[in-house]
Amino acid sequence: MYPNFSFTVQEQSSKSRARLGRLVTPHGIVETPAFIFCATKAAIKAVSPSDMKACGTQFILSNTYHLMIQPGAEVVEKLGGLHRFMSWDGPMLTDSGGFQIFSLGQGSVADEIKGRRNQNRTKTLLKITEEGATFKSYLDGRVHLLTPERAIEIQRSLGADLVVVLDECTPFHVDKNYTRQSMEMSHRWALRSLEEFKRGNNGKQAIYGIIQGGIYEDLRSESTAFVNEHPFFGHAIGGSLGADKAQMREVVGYTAAQLDRSRPIHLLGIGGINDIFSGVEQGIDTFDCVHPTRLARHGGALVRPDNLPPGKTGDHINLLNAIFRVDEQPIESDCPCMVCQKYSRGYLHHLLKAKELLACQLITIHNVMFMNRLLLAIRQAIKTDTLSAERKRWLMPAEDIISEDIKIFPVSGGLSG
Amino acid sequence: MYPNFSFTVQEQSSKSRARLGRLVTPHGIVETPAFIFCATKAAIKAVSPSDMKACGTQFILSNTYHLMIQPGAEVVEKLGGLHRFMSWDGPMLTDSGGFQIFSLGQGSVADEIKGRRNQNRTKTLLKITEEGATFKSYLDGRVHLLTPERAIEIQRSLGADLVVVLDECTPFHVDKNYTRQSMEMSHRWALRSLEEFKRGNNGKQAIYGIIQGGIYEDLRSESTAFVNEHPFFGHAIGGSLGADKAQMREVVGYTAAQLDRSRPIHLLGIGGINDIFSGVEQGIDTFDCVHPTRLARHGGALVRPDNLPPGKTGDHINLLNAIFRVDEQPIESDCPCMVCQKYSRGYLHHLLKAKELLACQLITIHNVMFMNRLLLAIRQAIKTDTLSAERKRWLMPAEDIISEDIKIFPVSGGLSG
Repeated sequence: MYPNFSFTVQEQSSKSRARLGRLVTPHGIVETPAFIFCATKAAIKAVSPSDMKACGTQFILSNTYHLMIQPGAEVVEKLGGLHRFMSWDGPMLTDSGGFQIFSLGQGSVADEIKGRRNQNRTKTLLKITEEGATFKSYLDGRVHLLTPERAIEIQRSLGADLVVVLDECTPFHVDKNYTRQSMEMSHRWALRSLEEFKRGNNGKQAIYGIIQGGIYEDLRSESTAFVNEHPFFGHAIGGSLGADKAQMREVVGYTAAQLDRSRPIHLLGIGGINDIFSGVEQGIDTFDCVHPTRLARHGGALVRPDNLPPGKTGDHINLLNAIFRVDEQPIESDCPCMVCQKYSRGYLHHLLKAKELLACQLITIHNVMFMNRLLLAIRQAIKTDTLSAERKRWLMPAEDIISEDIKIFPVSGGLSG
Repeated sequence: MYPNFSFTVQEQSSKSRARLGRLVTPHGIVETPAFIFCATKAAIKAVSPSDMKACGTQFILSNTYHLMIQPGAEVVEKLGGLHRFMSWDGPMLTDSGGFQIFSLGQGSVADEIKGRRNQNRTKTLLKITEEGATFKSYLDGRVHLLTPERAIEIQRSLGADLVVVLDECTPFHVDKNYTRQSMEMSHRWALRSLEEFKRGNNGKQAIYGIIQGGIYEDLRSESTAFVNEHPFFGHAIGGSLGADKAQMREVVGYTAAQLDRSRPIHLLGIGGINDIFSGVEQGIDTFDCVHPTRLARHGGALVRPDNLPPGKTGDHINLLNAIFRVDEQPIESDCPCMVCQKYSRGYLHHLLKAKELLACQLITIHNVMFMNRLLLAIRQAIKTDTLSAERKRWLMPAEDIISEDIKIFPVSGGLSG
């Protein structure tokens, strides 16, 4: 079913479910664990594909929801598909569009939309039926119906290597009964997505199933069994992961533990440093999150604890802060990125104060390099089975949740592939 | 006085005052005629220095007015001077700050300021006296006094290769008497600038004098005689150049004709394609203008007439136009820039519609390459004495003002250097 794709586990940690993998796609190989950067509207905000490549980026994604509204999947297809359209020749994923429809629909305006001027806070999700989701475009109010079949059709037009089934992204504040019914409909939608995928399969794409079930272990088990028994190429953990980080680790832990480990496992929308270390130890292969690139556009540059100014905590420095006004140092003195090689924090502070567009570009480049270095360090640490030690290099002691609390979840029996 | 600088004329056209020159600075050589791109606030808007270099850029400038207000010349100096600060290692010029003070002061808000949100339309120029110009910062209302000495001091802190005397930028709508008095004060300011320059001369900078005199040939002659007889490294034609293009050509023509031709001649703030051809034929060596980079941020991509869509005229295409929605072609099919190699007009149209920052970066890169290719073509045409033919390749027939009307101004006797 996937002649041009494969996923092989190269190395399995003896201490956790962490593993080194190799994900082969028609547009190249992804060494996992890997981070997927968000090119929401077919562009990484402020950074060109060649600069992304220069920072060691392996893998990006675009959002079907945004692209179906603007410019429209048929435009992207006419202009040669997403790879050609945006001039990215590496591995690429599109989501199903579901997440944005439902996060908008619930009134919790999706992050991607938050930045807009004339913010339209009216609910845009009109109805969810067995057929699909009906919603209004945030741009022009036009009504769209997204069915599982249509989600796959659109993703085929877009042409990313990896596509995702349409699911209902169940919110946190619903009861178990709703979560169960929603999950069951998502499973029926997944089968319809898979059928449509098979019908049009041209060998250039592979499809991921999504595990739903919210914060209920029995539902997650059911959903895990469902994806395991159908021929998805990979699995993505979706839906509500709980109210806090501890609950997220718990949910991801028991979910990942039950997944078919011959397939790549993606954790949707998660990309904090701590979350990545925890996720990797739980067996996650790929992550995506807008955090590194969005943070940059607000002046936040990711740094390891060593590179924080005295007394500061967290995962980044805010370059708008006046303490950087005449700071001659680069963001991180040990970072090989073009920005740290050439520019001082003082200059970046000036660009931000002067509202120069170049600020977004340069800080994003650093953050992309930071994430790629983080994942590279993680892959190297898996090879040497030193992940716990590596974690301490990237996190403040307070944030460095002891690896032991990961191990309360059973490590499945090594390579299952 | 300028041990590390030189200007030599390599080739003189037999048909006009057009010439090939070589301007040597401590940060490299500029082959002239050349275009100077505006890095107003120590950054080319949306484009990194390495991308500027990749487009063949030789020469950039920054504006003293903006930098003295933010971040302050002392900050730039502490952070290693402009070259180090912004990571540009090529030749660089700063202006005196006068132009912005006076253009703001006259109530005709300077172009650079036009883009600002909370536009402050109150006059910020408080008074002009023999001592200097007193103005309010557009940022915080703080009062600054810019004297000729201070303008040079600030430019020394900034550290560009080429600096400029402080002058009063006389507006168009004043009478001849005001223009004369203003010019005479500018001459006194120029001598004070020159004295301060000599006092602190460290061999790393060279100073340009400015020719004033408005649209009055006798005043321009006086001003030309003034700069010729003082030891400026180069000359810049400033002040009002008239009400229209025809008058500008006239003023530039008789002014350039009388200048000491052993020195490089700059035409301040002019950069239209037609104006550049005319200026080169009148003996101008360097030009600067925000047009190519600003146009890009509004979706305008410079193209030669051959690359205009059928029925269109002008020097650019507006990529926001719906006709480009599914256009697979690059901006210019014969352009070697990274953008034309990789992206379609359709993609750039999408980026603009989606308000993606990458749009500014990519279209600016094309426009920078366009200008550098234009100036390269001009230099090659001077070598082969085919400037008139070259002009026709870059301008629509209607815009292609016949070279003859340039020749009504006497060509001075070849190389005077």
